[in-house]
Amino acid sequence: MPLRIAMIGAGSIGFTRRLMRDILAVPELAATTFAMTDISARNLDMVAQLCRRDIEFNRLPARIEATTDRRAAIKDADYIICTIRQGGLEAFRTDIDIPLKYGVDQCVGDTICAGGIMYAQRTIPALLDFCRDIRELAKQDALFLNYSNPMAMNTWACNQYGRVKTVGLCHGVQGAHHQIAEVLGAEKKDVDIIAAGINHQTWFVQVRYRGEDVTGKLLELFEKHPKFSQTEKIRIDVLRRFGFYSTESNGHLSEYLPWYRKRVDEINDWIDLSHWINGETGGYLRVCTEGRDWFETDFPNWLKEEPPTIGPHDRSEEHGSYIIQALETGCPYRGHFNVMNRGHIRNLPDGCCIEIPGYADANGIAMPVVGDLPLACAATCSASVRVQQMAMEAAVRGDVMLLKQAMLHDPLVGAVCNPEEVWQMTDEMLVAQEKWLPQYATEIPAARKRLADHERNGTRVRLRHTDGAARLRTKSVEEMSRDAAEARANAAAADKGKMTSVSSVGQ
Amino acid sequence: MPLRIAMIGAGSIGFTRRLMRDILAVPELAATTFAMTDISARNLDMVAQLCRRDIEFNRLPARIEATTDRRAAIKDADYIICTIRQGGLEAFRTDIDIPLKYGVDQCVGDTICAGGIMYAQRTIPALLDFCRDIRELAKQDALFLNYSNPMAMNTWACNQYGRVKTVGLCHGVQGAHHQIAEVLGAEKKDVDIIAAGINHQTWFVQVRYRGEDVTGKLLELFEKHPKFSQTEKIRIDVLRRFGFYSTESNGHLSEYLPWYRKRVDEINDWIDLSHWINGETGGYLRVCTEGRDWFETDFPNWLKEEPPTIGPHDRSEEHGSYIIQALETGCPYRGHFNVMNRGHIRNLPDGCCIEIPGYADANGIAMPVVGDLPLACAATCSASVRVQQMAMEAAVRGDVMLLKQAMLHDPLVGAVCNPEEVWQMTDEMLVAQEKWLPQYATEIPAARKRLADHERNGTRVRLRHTDGAARLRTKSVEEMSRDAAEARANAAAADKGKMTSVSSVGQ
Amino acid sequence: MPLRIAMIGAGSIGFTRRLMRDILAVPELAATTFAMTDISARNLDMVAQLCRRDIEFNRLPARIEATTDRRAAIKDADYIICTIRQGGLEAFRTDIDIPLKYGVDQCVGDTICAGGIMYAQRTIPALLDFCRDIRELAKQDALFLNYSNPMAMNTWACNQYGRVKTVGLCHGVQGAHHQIAEVLGAEKKDVDIIAAGINHQTWFVQVRYRGEDVTGKLLELFEKHPKFSQTEKIRIDVLRRFGFYSTESNGHLSEYLPWYRKRVDEINDWIDLSHWINGETGGYLRVCTEGRDWFETDFPNWLKEEPPTIGPHDRSEEHGSYIIQALETGCPYRGHFNVMNRGHIRNLPDGCCIEIPGYADANGIAMPVVGDLPLACAATCSASVRVQQMAMEAAVRGDVMLLKQAMLHDPLVGAVCNPEEVWQMTDEMLVAQEKWLPQYATEIPAARKRLADHERNGTRVRLRHTDGAARLRTKSVEEMSRDAAEARANAAAADKGKMTSVSSVGQ
Amino acid sequence: MPLRIAMIGAGSIGFTRRLMRDILAVPELAATTFAMTDISARNLDMVAQLCRRDIEFNRLPARIEATTDRRAAIKDADYIICTIRQGGLEAFRTDIDIPLKYGVDQCVGDTICAGGIMYAQRTIPALLDFCRDIRELAKQDALFLNYSNPMAMNTWACNQYGRVKTVGLCHGVQGAHHQIAEVLGAEKKDVDIIAAGINHQTWFVQVRYRGEDVTGKLLELFEKHPKFSQTEKIRIDVLRRFGFYSTESNGHLSEYLPWYRKRVDEINDWIDLSHWINGETGGYLRVCTEGRDWFETDFPNWLKEEPPTIGPHDRSEEHGSYIIQALETGCPYRGHFNVMNRGHIRNLPDGCCIEIPGYADANGIAMPVVGDLPLACAATCSASVRVQQMAMEAAVRGDVMLLKQAMLHDPLVGAVCNPEEVWQMTDEMLVAQEKWLPQYATEIPAARKRLADHERNGTRVRLRHTDGAARLRTKSVEEMSRDAAEARANAAAADKGKMTSVSSVGQ
Repeated sequence: MPLRIAMIGAGSIGFTRRLMRDILAVPELAATTFAMTDISARNLDMVAQLCRRDIEFNRLPARIEATTDRRAAIKDADYIICTIRQGGLEAFRTDIDIPLKYGVDQCVGDTICAGGIMYAQRTIPALLDFCRDIRELAKQDALFLNYSNPMAMNTWACNQYGRVKTVGLCHGVQGAHHQIAEVLGAEKKDVDIIAAGINHQTWFVQVRYRGEDVTGKLLELFEKHPKFSQTEKIRIDVLRRFGFYSTESNGHLSEYLPWYRKRVDEINDWIDLSHWINGETGGYLRVCTEGRDWFETDFPNWLKEEPPTIGPHDRSEEHGSYIIQALETGCPYRGHFNVMNRGHIRNLPDGCCIEIPGYADANGIAMPVVGDLPLACAATCSASVRVQQMAMEAAVRGDVMLLKQAMLHDPLVGAVCNPEEVWQMTDEMLVAQEKWLPQYATEIPAARKRLADHERNGTRVRLRHTDGAARLRTKSVEEMSRDAAEARANAAAADKGKMTSVSSVGQ
Repeated sequence: MPLRIAMIGAGSIGFTRRLMRDILAVPELAATTFAMTDISARNLDMVAQLCRRDIEFNRLPARIEATTDRRAAIKDADYIICTIRQGGLEAFRTDIDIPLKYGVDQCVGDTICAGGIMYAQRTIPALLDFCRDIRELAKQDALFLNYSNPMAMNTWACNQYGRVKTVGLCHGVQGAHHQIAEVLGAEKKDVDIIAAGINHQTWFVQVRYRGEDVTGKLLELFEKHPKFSQTEKIRIDVLRRFGFYSTESNGHLSEYLPWYRKRVDEINDWIDLSHWINGETGGYLRVCTEGRDWFETDFPNWLKEEPPTIGPHDRSEEHGSYIIQALETGCPYRGHFNVMNRGHIRNLPDGCCIEIPGYADANGIAMPVVGDLPLACAATCSASVRVQQMAMEAAVRGDVMLLKQAMLHDPLVGAVCNPEEVWQMTDEMLVAQEKWLPQYATEIPAARKRLADHERNGTRVRLRHTDGAARLRTKSVEEMSRDAAEARANAAAADKGKMTSVSSVGQ
Repeated sequence: MPLRIAMIGAGSIGFTRRLMRDILAVPELAATTFAMTDISARNLDMVAQLCRRDIEFNRLPARIEATTDRRAAIKDADYIICTIRQGGLEAFRTDIDIPLKYGVDQCVGDTICAGGIMYAQRTIPALLDFCRDIRELAKQDALFLNYSNPMAMNTWACNQYGRVKTVGLCHGVQGAHHQIAEVLGAEKKDVDIIAAGINHQTWFVQVRYRGEDVTGKLLELFEKHPKFSQTEKIRIDVLRRFGFYSTESNGHLSEYLPWYRKRVDEINDWIDLSHWINGETGGYLRVCTEGRDWFETDFPNWLKEEPPTIGPHDRSEEHGSYIIQALETGCPYRGHFNVMNRGHIRNLPDGCCIEIPGYADANGIAMPVVGDLPLACAATCSASVRVQQMAMEAAVRGDVMLLKQAMLHDPLVGAVCNPEEVWQMTDEMLVAQEKWLPQYATEIPAARKRLADHERNGTRVRLRHTDGAARLRTKSVEEMSRDAAEARANAAAADKGKMTSVSSVGQ
Repeated sequence: MPLRIAMIGAGSIGFTRRLMRDILAVPELAATTFAMTDISARNLDMVAQLCRRDIEFNRLPARIEATTDRRAAIKDADYIICTIRQGGLEAFRTDIDIPLKYGVDQCVGDTICAGGIMYAQRTIPALLDFCRDIRELAKQDALFLNYSNPMAMNTWACNQYGRVKTVGLCHGVQGAHHQIAEVLGAEKKDVDIIAAGINHQTWFVQVRYRGEDVTGKLLELFEKHPKFSQTEKIRIDVLRRFGFYSTESNGHLSEYLPWYRKRVDEINDWIDLSHWINGETGGYLRVCTEGRDWFETDFPNWLKEEPPTIGPHDRSEEHGSYIIQALETGCPYRGHFNVMNRGHIRNLPDGCCIEIPGYADANGIAMPVVGDLPLACAATCSASVRVQQMAMEAAVRGDVMLLKQAMLHDPLVGAVCNPEEVWQMTDEMLVAQEKWLPQYATEIPAARKRLADHERNGTRVRLRHTDGAARLRTKSVEEMSRDAAEARANAAAADKGKMTSVSSVGQ
């Protein structure tokens, strides 16, 4: 029987279309119904237009249903895919700009750190709503594939509190796998890897090239690589200190650790501004903003462009379509997935959300026991996991105290701020994001009052007036028009999850 | 670089040759050196002759080294394969015959129950010697593939006390998989299964045919299958009571449970004498004896027979060659392997030896977390695991008290005997097997004295004079000559691990 | 503020009055309100009369509230004590008599084995009702002290499914502790013990007399003890085989193990008929029946007898009053309590109900990690735990299949019966106890039909016509009158939980 | 039989004499032999003189053996008590002074942070030597009571790698307990507490005053306490942020967390210089130096002073004598002890060293399951545990990389330094402490060379020239003479473990 796949947040232009084409590249899945839903009727309509053209052009039996009624989309779904960005760019801007006033200079801000923690507060209530709908309306044992960040906290909440079987998907491992192959002068397919840890902090604990363990050679190879030695300085430094390469991009990694972004005058020694992911202050916010602006301008042109031919040659490396193919057709697939830790990584807390290799086939998704992480990798991941747990629980319960404790224990926030700064920063973020935080509705007025009292009493902490150590200006549509091809690529890349062959983005 | 594979117990005619051909069927492994060793120079020589003929006939670069010096064989090995039967048929006979006097009527006697427990006492000291040699002499990270029974106890001891990475291999899952496919009227490849439990007590916890869960349909299908309804009565009854089909053959299963062989007058209601594995008293002992006798007579004819053409068409379903292929070439393989339980099955004790699905590829062997077994399956497996633990620890320490406690807690022994019978039976078996039990050297004289004292004092328990409820006579070579083809098949099947397409043997 | 203690099943004459006096012996607790409830208004009234006399006689400020409205009794309670016997003697009789027809000869039948398993089916639904009331009505963090059997299953269900903090209390450890002191020729206070296991199968894993470990001396001392060598033959045999003394009385122990009651002609070799607890068939049923009959006759005399003086000299060894005293006054207490296994005993399943030493004081109840049980003790306990888990889950869900699997895996049932006998016996017990099994309401008609079909089809298993191997006749009131003092002691002892100095009863 | 107690590091004047008197205050222990050993014959002689006078004066049968032959002291000991300070004040000085050059400003430096990590490197090899001696020479099951810091790492190493049953003892919980009682206006005995966590980071997760939970009232009470509001600012701030009071003194706590000592200009806002433990830079080093200097001058006067009368009135709150009394006489004791985490605290890693309530009596030491710590407490403790694990493993293996990773992950070091600073600081400390680091013998020359290369190449990180934010000058003996009473108190307090009624010192 043909599948029904619900896509929540389907207004994400790049990703939705990408995943649809990936799935339709599998002949057995050609008759799939995609039930697309979004809170923006306009975005949904644009995406649906593009997708329908693709299907028609390729003469496939697939169908698109587009509706703003989420429950209608979820009804009877075999799979539910989520790519929402709760609060959109409006909320995202405050994730970056408020912490800057307190000295916390983030590049992406969607995983942990001040921005990622607040992002979880916005997203988890929405996801728990989806989970309730899935439990009520979807097929029994429907699988929830989550692409929304913050991946670890979201997937954790869906499994534990949403009570829906949820797998979190990210392409960070593939991106770093490409890099390792490149420094080895090898093809990716000849480099065998086991990566383990937590999303955006997954470690290549085993790297084999033609059967030989090459873990110990990577540092020298990366150090002498002409490009990576410039763009991946933090990543290489972490490899130097830890002995293991991490999945995480230079910019992302910099904001999860206490060591590289805490001194304003050293940030630029570690990052690279040739690509936002290498460390630019608010880089992802900028590129998302530009992408959105461009897409709105450029949409008519997208409709004129000839649709791509769907097929294996066009298929991306995103896990989603491969998992569905494996489960439905039995064609085996190995990838790195985010799941609950049930003894898989012994030296991370039981029950947290980890990213490890998994196997999908007709028997389901099988997640092997990995054992212990190297101690330093475990220590670094553990620090994040503790933050995630407090932030996730805070998001579920609407607990301001726990939220502030999460912020306080965040490695970069804790290295930069003192406790009172953390308290006031959190209050300010709660107030600024009030409309996306239903669970804090009764708490936010008190936060607002506390801030006002501090202003009145002169106990407000000292704020910095800065755009960050490494901020680039957001381009206007006119500026972008000068290089439309790049702008279009950005517009697609701005969407969550787009994997391109040149990117090593692990968001 | 070509592999070196040490084979311990290589005098096992059927199995050694079978596995060699399986491995040589993989083109990348054609230059493998097989370092064969056995305590019997004569058997080793016969097997080596046959294997060398096979290699020459197929014009392969592989080499055979045959030596009775075990350490020479193990030196520099990449893989070590063990197929020994410690004590041979001489000891095996006492595993069957002594318990019969106490009312314990076994079919195979090589897993748990009185025979299996004593088999572990003989085998584990030998395996720990091999492990010491492997740690000292083999390649670093060499993999030990154990085929010797009792599988669970042996593999447990090698991993825990031998401190060698050991995987236990059995084809029981494949045998039952064939049966399930047959009752479904399907091809095996279209039936997807997850089996989990302990060796010889592994449960099909998920069975899907073309994506549909058919677990609930199996009972009816087996009940109406013309052959299985007669040959697999216990297995089907267990399916009826538990809701899950087990890997274990009818005869084997009957001796692990307290319910089917405890009343002498009911045994024949449950078993079938058309094939030894269906429940014949001492069936495996008979067929092994016949096989050995026949092989010694028939060997000259084997040398005259044209060697088989090695290649995919000739390859058996034994896991060994597929695992080596997967690890060496990266060609993925999924099978059911025996490993230490490290959270894989949550409701069996941590650290015991379990049999679950695993994936082998260039990254190594990955063993997924299975979760909980159904409660009744867990209860039955747990009873065996507790026996295994006591018996395995007893074998390592030479602890008579613990050995007797293992016997006492064995499901069938405990259902048949009272404690004093268990104590005297164990003493009698210790005395009878003295020459293979170095770890009990200082304890056995006391056991002998206890038995003598009981005789003298009239406190010897009442013994039964019986050949068992369902015993067949061992055929003479002359009798076997009348059907030489069947005898030859038996001779091969008598060896550990021979997989034939018609057999559902799970030993 | 004075405490409020709800007592459910307060119609248990001996126990209710005993516990009230124990509590009132603590000066700080003299103003306690006892809110007594029972389904029998008559029994409740008799007990309340006796208790009020005791309070008045001792001029204490305590109060008795007696009501058949359970929720009224529970409202605002600090502690809730449960001593119910669900189904009373009417149901109890079928727990003993039906299994006898299938060869299962029980002495007590209230823990595991056929009777205990069915007792759990009746009791757990009632306890879950109490738990719901406690969650809704009692003080926050009220503590539930359960004395009702089957202890382990009941306490497990209350904690896991009732979601009420429940501690199970039994005096079995004290009874055996007295015996150990006696064989040592010591006073109990000079013998230090650690007992660990599950209720009614708790093992003295450490016994010290004046600082010296005397575990290894116990066997010889018990063997030569003039009384125990006759009355405790099974217990001593288990000590001989296992190396550790068990809390359990001879009669009880005999029905938890596969070895001593399975052969009808050997039962009398192991038991002693001088006291019901030593192994008499249906002994506890007899004594409870006699006790009840006598009490109804004798009640007027109880009212004439001078009430006892309440105080330390009158206090029993039951844990209940000591725990309450410890929690309320801070006076430390060490006892053996039944709690959920959260790593306390490492080689029993996590989450099962265990009995181990605990400390109570003003900080609460602290339960130490005990570590591993000796392997044979763990194996025997584990077999019971698996049965308990299936039976407990069956009771909660009303799952007939699981109930039968529990029966099938019961050590004694499994040693005596074949699977079909287990199936039919369970169906017969379900039908007989229908009125106390609301959770099976929709399933019992099918069980009745199955039995009828078997009768019609001639597939009913062979039943035995027997009163059991060692049954005594229940005395009439007239017979009892001849020794009124003994009858009165029996009447009190018949109630759950009465500790007398001469008794080693571990029920 | 009288006990034999070996005391290693017995040259610690205050502590050795204190503990001896504590033990001799127990009548049953009056005949104890104290086998004192130290590497300093001179200190040992001074202490032995004082102790012998005490025994004679009190006319007790106890004996003192004093020997520099450690193995002779350990031989046949029932208990072994360790109070060594490996490397003495000479090494200690570098624990404080080198990190200061890299911006790490410590108050005590003996737990984690740069100083504590190096202290473990020096101490653990010595402790493992003691453990080997204990395994070989002491009584079977002898108990090792460790008072030496860093407590958690030392106790962890002794249990895991020394394979000796070791309990770590500290009086931090008692100190904070006194404070809590004081703010409540209560007597300590009326305040019941459960503290749980790791040594020097143990949290009062339950505080009851006369049965009422007062956890939520503590913040306000401490804030308004005239003294503590000034001396315990960090501790109170942590109570404000976390909701739970910690055992740790203000100065100690400040160096375990990333928030209070990282900004040089804020340190003095948080600490108090009236007592070294409140935060003074290198405060403990200063007071230990003064104490040692004074003792050497003042010793003749100590000999003239009348010895104290030994008895209950003179007994300190140190756990040691109470544990020995409890184990030997059965007199129950409840205290907070450092043990391996075996499920006691569920949300800290299994196998780490935790501090929780324990009960000692004739049955041994029983450590209850505590459950989960509050999330923020768990996060903070977990960060320390990860550092401890890396540092402890590094100390055992002599692994420089792991040692640097421990430093890098230390909360305060990580908040202050960048990775290259951590690397160079560690190398400098290794070189400075070479003579106490036998396990790094082959590694230290390379560290020395790396530092020289950095000097030569101009890649040495920038060093600070500072005595720290809050350093006091060490007094000369002349200065101390002006207040001899205070100096003498300091001399005693300078020794590890001295508990005085006014001190809240948790070292």
